[in-house]
Amino acid sequence: MIICIQGLGYVGAAMCVAVANANKKYKVFGVDLPTQRGEKIIKDINNGIFPFKSSDLDLKKKIRKVTKNGTLKATSSTKVFEKASVVIVSINCDIKKTKRGPIINLKDFEKSIAQFAKRIKENTLVIIESTVPPGTCKKIVEPTIRNIFFKRKLNVNNIYLAHSYERVTPGKNYLSSIINNWRVYSGINDKSSEKCKKFLSSFINTKKYPLTKLANTNSSELSKLMENSFRAVNIAFIEEWRSLAEKIDIDLFEVIKAIKKRPTHNNMKDPGFGVGGYCLTKDPLMAKIGAKQLWDINENFDFSNKSVKTNNLMPTSTVNKIKIYFRNNLKRKKILLLGATYKEDIEDTRNSPSELFYKKMIKFGCEIEVHDPLVNYWSEVNTKVHKNLPDLKKFDAVVFAVKHNVYRKINFNKWKPKKKYFLFFDANNVLSNKQLNIIKKRFKIISIGRG
Amino acid sequence: MIICIQGLGYVGAAMCVAVANANKKYKVFGVDLPTQRGEKIIKDINNGIFPFKSSDLDLKKKIRKVTKNGTLKATSSTKVFEKASVVIVSINCDIKKTKRGPIINLKDFEKSIAQFAKRIKENTLVIIESTVPPGTCKKIVEPTIRNIFFKRKLNVNNIYLAHSYERVTPGKNYLSSIINNWRVYSGINDKSSEKCKKFLSSFINTKKYPLTKLANTNSSELSKLMENSFRAVNIAFIEEWRSLAEKIDIDLFEVIKAIKKRPTHNNMKDPGFGVGGYCLTKDPLMAKIGAKQLWDINENFDFSNKSVKTNNLMPTSTVNKIKIYFRNNLKRKKILLLGATYKEDIEDTRNSPSELFYKKMIKFGCEIEVHDPLVNYWSEVNTKVHKNLPDLKKFDAVVFAVKHNVYRKINFNKWKPKKKYFLFFDANNVLSNKQLNIIKKRFKIISIGRG
Repeated sequence: MIICIQGLGYVGAAMCVAVANANKKYKVFGVDLPTQRGEKIIKDINNGIFPFKSSDLDLKKKIRKVTKNGTLKATSSTKVFEKASVVIVSINCDIKKTKRGPIINLKDFEKSIAQFAKRIKENTLVIIESTVPPGTCKKIVEPTIRNIFFKRKLNVNNIYLAHSYERVTPGKNYLSSIINNWRVYSGINDKSSEKCKKFLSSFINTKKYPLTKLANTNSSELSKLMENSFRAVNIAFIEEWRSLAEKIDIDLFEVIKAIKKRPTHNNMKDPGFGVGGYCLTKDPLMAKIGAKQLWDINENFDFSNKSVKTNNLMPTSTVNKIKIYFRNNLKRKKILLLGATYKEDIEDTRNSPSELFYKKMIKFGCEIEVHDPLVNYWSEVNTKVHKNLPDLKKFDAVVFAVKHNVYRKINFNKWKPKKKYFLFFDANNVLSNKQLNIIKKRFKIISIGRG
Repeated sequence: MIICIQGLGYVGAAMCVAVANANKKYKVFGVDLPTQRGEKIIKDINNGIFPFKSSDLDLKKKIRKVTKNGTLKATSSTKVFEKASVVIVSINCDIKKTKRGPIINLKDFEKSIAQFAKRIKENTLVIIESTVPPGTCKKIVEPTIRNIFFKRKLNVNNIYLAHSYERVTPGKNYLSSIINNWRVYSGINDKSSEKCKKFLSSFINTKKYPLTKLANTNSSELSKLMENSFRAVNIAFIEEWRSLAEKIDIDLFEVIKAIKKRPTHNNMKDPGFGVGGYCLTKDPLMAKIGAKQLWDINENFDFSNKSVKTNNLMPTSTVNKIKIYFRNNLKRKKILLLGATYKEDIEDTRNSPSELFYKKMIKFGCEIEVHDPLVNYWSEVNTKVHKNLPDLKKFDAVVFAVKHNVYRKINFNKWKPKKKYFLFFDANNVLSNKQLNIIKKRFKIISIGRG
């Protein structure tokens, strides 16, 4: 049974491993474009190497195994689609800025669909795993396949299409987060749903994490956007309370802890440095744009849209506080930024709040050095990253931006900054109370969310 | 030990019972104003009758008991404050519209504080239970008491003041929701906190629901506003997704059910008819107004403020859908509205979405009759309420607005509307799928949140 996974990005590449590892009868082909980037990824995978930075040892072990035993192969040839029983679409569908405002790049998405629709046989199950606006399967994917099937003189009644989105968590349990996770799916008809369910059950731990079938693909597409928007809105909600709390001597962490005792409120987030990654920075914008683009429906989605703006401004509030501390003069101030990734203990630097912070501080004339235990070179800002904590003597301030585990282990009694009034800035609740207390005794500490 | 509870509203009256019932050594005085309303409430309580409609049988039993055995007495005389060991302030602090915009009526609140400050002895513990903007204890209550103590030549070091808000749930377990609930508190100094903790522990089940002490009264005051705003924002968030879902054939209930499988998302709300009651309609507005009024700080609180607007408009979306169904002609349409209260299985009609719906529909020329199992007379709209379900033959449509348990038991096979194309409108996910299916077979049914 041949399974093709189209798009070997961070998700697609890991999906290849999850599926290939599940069943020896599967022959999995990962397919990407014959671009420089694509060919590099393909080469890595075929050498048994996960093509992205990852701290997941299990993923690294399993990719070696499944490439060695021949279950997984990566390629840029679309010929492999011809024998596929299942095609999983794991390509990006991004928002593109245009003169007329933002649109969702469904044209490129459609082209990718056409790429395999020209090749697949009747009865192949297509599963869209990408985050797409509601209506994409019915209004873009199915018609594209149907038109091509029609031209190819194939039976358009034998199109099988479903949407099922992933809920992966980067980090050291990345592969496990594909297999051990609740998953939602829906087909364009009963048989598509049935086939999708059967296939998902072959590599997901459905005993512990039962699948949820939704009534139609619109619902599944919307579900992904809605759950990420819920999260983004709840982060932005905290941000609006953080600001007042800091001004009137309130420790928002203890307040939120008190509120979260109520089970109805236990999803509340803590204040933080910002929101990054690929999903929360884009998904909350998709519903409004998609409703207009695919359905000609005007909806405001004020909460979801505003959440992205609010969350984008979060690192700026840290910049402003540091600016005030240095009396508006950041020129040639030497800052050590601790953490470049968008989340703790992962390697992913996409859209990280640290990036926004870094760029803004550089603009104000700061000189920034960066430390991150999981990043060698930070491509978004073109800078090398310290792997070991540098000597503090040359800096004017240290900014803790990411809750990497190693920062919680720093013994501040041994750290020697150059001045007594050296500034520590904990922008993300990185440090423990014990650490904060040690710093308080010797230096200046500003910590976000605490009045 | 004498305990005075100032303000015999819906919360204060129940607090009297909770405290009086906890300890025979307590002598509890409920104090209200000598107005017509106040005297009526006082008379009721002294007759062993809970002064508000309630379905809580335990509350009714216990109020008889504690008035009969002399533990609880209600009065309009402020003389009782003179011997109080504890004063609980349970009066309303409302938002008032003025020409310059909304302000919080702290003037009247201050007057109420002065009322007992003139009477209490040194060392009396004052607990503010009212929902107030952050800073009220420190900037209003404490200075008011201090000034009066100073004039009375009392030692201002012997002022004890704390804030501790309630989290009651109206309904048949109302009294229990005071006793069996997590509670937050904070004093203006250590001794105030200590005294407050001791007193709260005397009537709250702190073994199962431990108290949370916060660092200062600002924090406790903010905490209440923030937890209610969190809820209001999450309701408004769903409302913005409901609208699109209905237009593109999505059942939002099943989507939300799927998302809620993630523990990080289990606080998501279902679509509904609107938001009512005393707290969620006002608390989210208080932080912004209070920050300006008490601290001269400008904060946007966009999410919190917008949630109130969005939630207020929710019943209008039902009005609009009914209007479309009747082709914009609602004149003399006979509507049966099922449910007048702001929540299911409670008697409280304050700010109910049904009220907004009723007023709007009347404006459009509808003739509305109302049924509610728990309301006799609906004072907000001056109308009598059916206690038994009336004959359907005279109506053009039925609108289910409140999830009262009795509505879930209606057998629609036996219901006989006058026409085949009779409209049922389930505006609040009141009916079961089984009921909806029966209706679907025979009549027209529109249900909110379902595409």
